[in-house]
Amino acid sequence: MKIVCSSSELKKALDTVSKAVPSRPTHPILGNILLVAKEDEIELTGFDLIMGIKTTLKAEVEEEGTITLPCKFFGDIVAKLPDTEISIEWDGEEESFVEIYGKAGKFKLRGVESSEYPELPTVIGNKVITLPSKSIKEGLYGTLFSVSNDDTKPILTGVHLVQTVDKLEFASTDGHRLSIVKTFQEEPFESEFTCTIPARALREVERLITDEQISLLFDESLISFKIENTTIVSRSLDGAYPNYHQLIPTVFSRSLVADRKELIEALERVAVFTDQKNNLVRFKISDNQVCIRTDSKELGNASVTIPIEFIGESIEIGFNYKYFIEGLKHLFSKEVRLQLNEATQPTIVTPLNGFDATYLVMPVQIRD
Amino acid sequence: MKIVCSSSELKKALDTVSKAVPSRPTHPILGNILLVAKEDEIELTGFDLIMGIKTTLKAEVEEEGTITLPCKFFGDIVAKLPDTEISIEWDGEEESFVEIYGKAGKFKLRGVESSEYPELPTVIGNKVITLPSKSIKEGLYGTLFSVSNDDTKPILTGVHLVQTVDKLEFASTDGHRLSIVKTFQEEPFESEFTCTIPARALREVERLITDEQISLLFDESLISFKIENTTIVSRSLDGAYPNYHQLIPTVFSRSLVADRKELIEALERVAVFTDQKNNLVRFKISDNQVCIRTDSKELGNASVTIPIEFIGESIEIGFNYKYFIEGLKHLFSKEVRLQLNEATQPTIVTPLNGFDATYLVMPVQIRD
Repeated sequence: MKIVCSSSELKKALDTVSKAVPSRPTHPILGNILLVAKEDEIELTGFDLIMGIKTTLKAEVEEEGTITLPCKFFGDIVAKLPDTEISIEWDGEEESFVEIYGKAGKFKLRGVESSEYPELPTVIGNKVITLPSKSIKEGLYGTLFSVSNDDTKPILTGVHLVQTVDKLEFASTDGHRLSIVKTFQEEPFESEFTCTIPARALREVERLITDEQISLLFDESLISFKIENTTIVSRSLDGAYPNYHQLIPTVFSRSLVADRKELIEALERVAVFTDQKNNLVRFKISDNQVCIRTDSKELGNASVTIPIEFIGESIEIGFNYKYFIEGLKHLFSKEVRLQLNEATQPTIVTPLNGFDATYLVMPVQIRD
Repeated sequence: MKIVCSSSELKKALDTVSKAVPSRPTHPILGNILLVAKEDEIELTGFDLIMGIKTTLKAEVEEEGTITLPCKFFGDIVAKLPDTEISIEWDGEEESFVEIYGKAGKFKLRGVESSEYPELPTVIGNKVITLPSKSIKEGLYGTLFSVSNDDTKPILTGVHLVQTVDKLEFASTDGHRLSIVKTFQEEPFESEFTCTIPARALREVERLITDEQISLLFDESLISFKIENTTIVSRSLDGAYPNYHQLIPTVFSRSLVADRKELIEALERVAVFTDQKNNLVRFKISDNQVCIRTDSKELGNASVTIPIEFIGESIEIGFNYKYFIEGLKHLFSKEVRLQLNEATQPTIVTPLNGFDATYLVMPVQIRD
């Protein structure tokens, strides 16, 4: 194998595929990156048996070949190179080093033959869906943050996608809150689909997304995204996603409109006295104002009052301030509407603009 | 006590004095900040029994008074306030809260009476030295990084200052390397002094320094810096500072000149294969080049060759790459001179410009 390529292109490609390389691999070979030099390009692959990322870069391939190299060291070497041409060469002997050299220095790195590297699974069939990047960006931004981190309920560790003829809906919930984003498009979608995709793979999609459309391939158990010359393959999540639409009340006895930024700042300001256990912050909502307050009998208390428009009877309701603030930060609009019934029932937050997002947050019981 | 002040001025002052407040105080009161409202200003003090910082800010004092407030909560409240006027009020009753309020919200915080707060020690006598800020900046930048972190040799955890008629000399060593910076000035100093100052206090001096001169007061056991309206008081370090000048060889059999940036980049590039124990990097110095190299029998090796001017016989010498690179980064000059004798003896690095700095680094034995 003998190839010449740009160090900066290689750096970018390594950075992309390394996200699928586990830092503590269960099998040593999974700590490596697969490098395939063929025709006029290098293909790099990282794979942790759940998610795989493959990408290509242009190269002068003087001699085709394939090898795996330890991701950490290969990455460290390339990361510190200036933008220059580098050569990668291996004589094909099992015990010999792979040589990486150029103006900036000379490096020898022990590789492992590619025959030991597991094969990336491929999607069976040809169900392809093309998704507009704007929809994906909005949907992921509005839902990825509220995915569950609890591996005992695997289905909740993903974002649920439902595509119908005219819209693409994203949803996520961790049991304490629920985020839904609907994106619509002028031209109807050609096909319908429903699946739950691990957040980890979607975080890489979010990181790599450009203004180009995304191709999505899927079968019973796998899902694959193609973003320009990079492919992300992941197992999809088994099981039935909760019927979340039924969690959203249809009638509300109370409704208020507030400035989103004012609400966020008020929550940040009073947060000083929340305890670490339930992060309780109290909302005392009355005619034309909400007083947001935290208390610590020992240390002190904090309160900020902001003006609102309110319809309904006065109420005091408690929230986990972290959940509340995180939801507000992921809604794009100057003002938000809060709709609620009683202090033990969910509150719905929606933006007051064209963006179709719904954030449901469960209250926290106030014990005095 | 009743005062009105600017929240941004208060934020800045709290940030300054909080550096002397221990995060895990041995006595609860040391986790507090002393606040004294008098005439037209507020004086804030933080003190951990070793180092104290005191600063003042302008305020409208409607009613004079003094109280201590928990640094963490007081700081958290003020940090999140927008730039506005705030009032601080306390009715003087032991059990009642201190109220902090303004447009941005209302906060109550439990204080502790100031009588429990330890008094900051004051320097006895009137030995005052005025130091130009440029000298202090250069001297601290060139020596603070190589101070020892080992509390079993307290004297080495400080920077040693020696002022003679025409120069101010800074030195620090951790046993592996030694940094010396000499700063000269046109007008002779009026007095001479020698002392060793804890790095912790000097890091605060470095952080607060402006273009104004610094006043330094000292006695047998204390040292105090006055930078504009802030005073930093610290115990000085007892004991005799090592006679470091005798460590620097006066005759060298080998001397080379290299580009400083090229050396730093080469060290960073080859660092990939250094082991974490001794960070060994080998310099193979010959006629007109130095080959800098690291080796790991298992994983691979890295080498970068850079051109140099060299006088002397070829030699191979090992260094701890972290010590070497850190020294190079704190010398300001395009080129540096390395002077050495044998591979077991210290190497001296000096900048090739007007800046009078000397960096001595001990070699690491190469075992093959």
